[in-house]
Amino acid sequence: MSKIKVGIVGYGNLGKGVEMAIDQNDDMELAAIFTRRQPDQVQAKSKVDHMSNISKYRDDIDVMLLCGGSATDLPEQGPELAELFNTVDSFDTHAKIPEYFAKVEQAAKKGDNLALISTGWDPGVFSLSRVLAESILPEGNDYTFWGKGVSQGHSDAIRRVDGVKAGVQYTVPVDSALEKVRSGENPEFTTREKHLRVCYVVADEGADQDKIANEIKTMPNYFADYDTEVNFITEEELKANHSGIPHGGFVIRTGKTGDNTKQKIEFSLELGSNPEFTASVLVCYARAVYRLAKEGKKGAVTVFDIPYGLLSPKSPEELRRDYL
Amino acid sequence: MSKIKVGIVGYGNLGKGVEMAIDQNDDMELAAIFTRRQPDQVQAKSKVDHMSNISKYRDDIDVMLLCGGSATDLPEQGPELAELFNTVDSFDTHAKIPEYFAKVEQAAKKGDNLALISTGWDPGVFSLSRVLAESILPEGNDYTFWGKGVSQGHSDAIRRVDGVKAGVQYTVPVDSALEKVRSGENPEFTTREKHLRVCYVVADEGADQDKIANEIKTMPNYFADYDTEVNFITEEELKANHSGIPHGGFVIRTGKTGDNTKQKIEFSLELGSNPEFTASVLVCYARAVYRLAKEGKKGAVTVFDIPYGLLSPKSPEELRRDYL
Repeated sequence: MSKIKVGIVGYGNLGKGVEMAIDQNDDMELAAIFTRRQPDQVQAKSKVDHMSNISKYRDDIDVMLLCGGSATDLPEQGPELAELFNTVDSFDTHAKIPEYFAKVEQAAKKGDNLALISTGWDPGVFSLSRVLAESILPEGNDYTFWGKGVSQGHSDAIRRVDGVKAGVQYTVPVDSALEKVRSGENPEFTTREKHLRVCYVVADEGADQDKIANEIKTMPNYFADYDTEVNFITEEELKANHSGIPHGGFVIRTGKTGDNTKQKIEFSLELGSNPEFTASVLVCYARAVYRLAKEGKKGAVTVFDIPYGLLSPKSPEELRRDYL
Repeated sequence: MSKIKVGIVGYGNLGKGVEMAIDQNDDMELAAIFTRRQPDQVQAKSKVDHMSNISKYRDDIDVMLLCGGSATDLPEQGPELAELFNTVDSFDTHAKIPEYFAKVEQAAKKGDNLALISTGWDPGVFSLSRVLAESILPEGNDYTFWGKGVSQGHSDAIRRVDGVKAGVQYTVPVDSALEKVRSGENPEFTTREKHLRVCYVVADEGADQDKIANEIKTMPNYFADYDTEVNFITEEELKANHSGIPHGGFVIRTGKTGDNTKQKIEFSLELGSNPEFTASVLVCYARAVYRLAKEGKKGAVTVFDIPYGLLSPKSPEELRRDYL
């Protein structure tokens, strides 16, 4: 059987994760990686070519995985590449999803392609959990908690503070809040009550640590609305204990059926690497996009449009026999 | 907008659960309940008719929910009714699913209908969790634990023991086994190591409790392979504390991505009432069957064929905007 030929656009953490995930899936092969850098400066096991040559690969690639960022890369690349290829991306600017969907839909239809947007874990499998849980339990409440995990945006914010040499920020769900939710009492939380922010900071030599800690804790938008803990550590400690990119979280719905009977559905992730997990999600959705495109489906879709059977390399018969 | 007209076949715990679940969904209405009993002896808020009249309702019911048991009811009713109606059922004899699917598929195609088999929570949403988790993390292991919950079959077995007046059996996952799985060490378990069986028994007056306990604990197939706890209680205690039908469980997959990075996906349910939850799952799948049948889809399908967007009463636009 011929393999699904996958291309990668953008070779950062996510693109590298996709390359590794393809290795775990026998029905797929990596055709090429596309970059805006000089291709010969990119170290990868696979073929690397410059973005400007991508349109030459229309016949060689079944699904293109877009591994750029949501701020500037995807708003441009998403529509452009959906006109040339079947695509999968992890666009995660929640507020702009409808607008992005419309643009990608138009481009994909123009190019007779199928484009799946906004997959990964949130948006992605967390979104699926929210829809499933609400569909089963229409009378109830759901809650999403993130962490424990590294927030890239908050880590960047720390590093912009004067006197900070390096640093990392963890978003941590508050245990007592999780327990309140699980008990089914439908609590309402302030921002502060749901998540803590825990920072590990390497200060410049001679810098005023109290001043740094205060500046972080009172930073509007990022930290002021949270209980924030600032820990000063050495550069060695940072490297040894905080160089991973873990993340995770919880989607919990509690609801009632019948005569006030309590029901609870909980989905959780504990990820050793956020980009590697996101990459693995993208790759299994590439399989679904490949299959649906072959059936003639065109335009833009999301995870809500994809049956789980299409994500698995197993046949429908195997799934019914061994997984139901 | 006209409502989805649903019928119920079989008015036991599951059928009653479906009746209550339909009340929670504004886009549905209960058209009729069908029973093999005398219809005027069945107390329900809705219209009740005898099974023998069911074929007269072909134009009045969009989706028929089959609420009979898997041992004797569904093997017969599933194919018969799929020829007359779009159907949803909870057939849960795992080993016989391929055979049942084939029969229902043939009947549904003959009658130009769509039949969704084997939904609920296991088979059902647990099956979905297994397929999603394995598709994302092909290198890994998954584990399903059931409970804490009442097992009907084991409770019946207790009640057949001489000297037992009444009793109930809980299947309980072993905490230390759950923790081992969560740690990602991919343990192998014996039957005894995964689940405990906890029994609450009301003995006849003057019965030999040691003899009863011994007979339960050594009962082959049901209890002999497990650590079984037998507690004797009064009839009043049984009624006060053990008259519910709770259940639940865990599907956990641990796997590795990239360069040995640990990843964990966990899905769990804590159900105040097993039949009411199963009923709520059936009802949201009835919505999907209604929509797919309208698009012209025919034959038999399972949860693996249904995108989550079809389960929700919300529009695709709303789902993308508010749930991604």
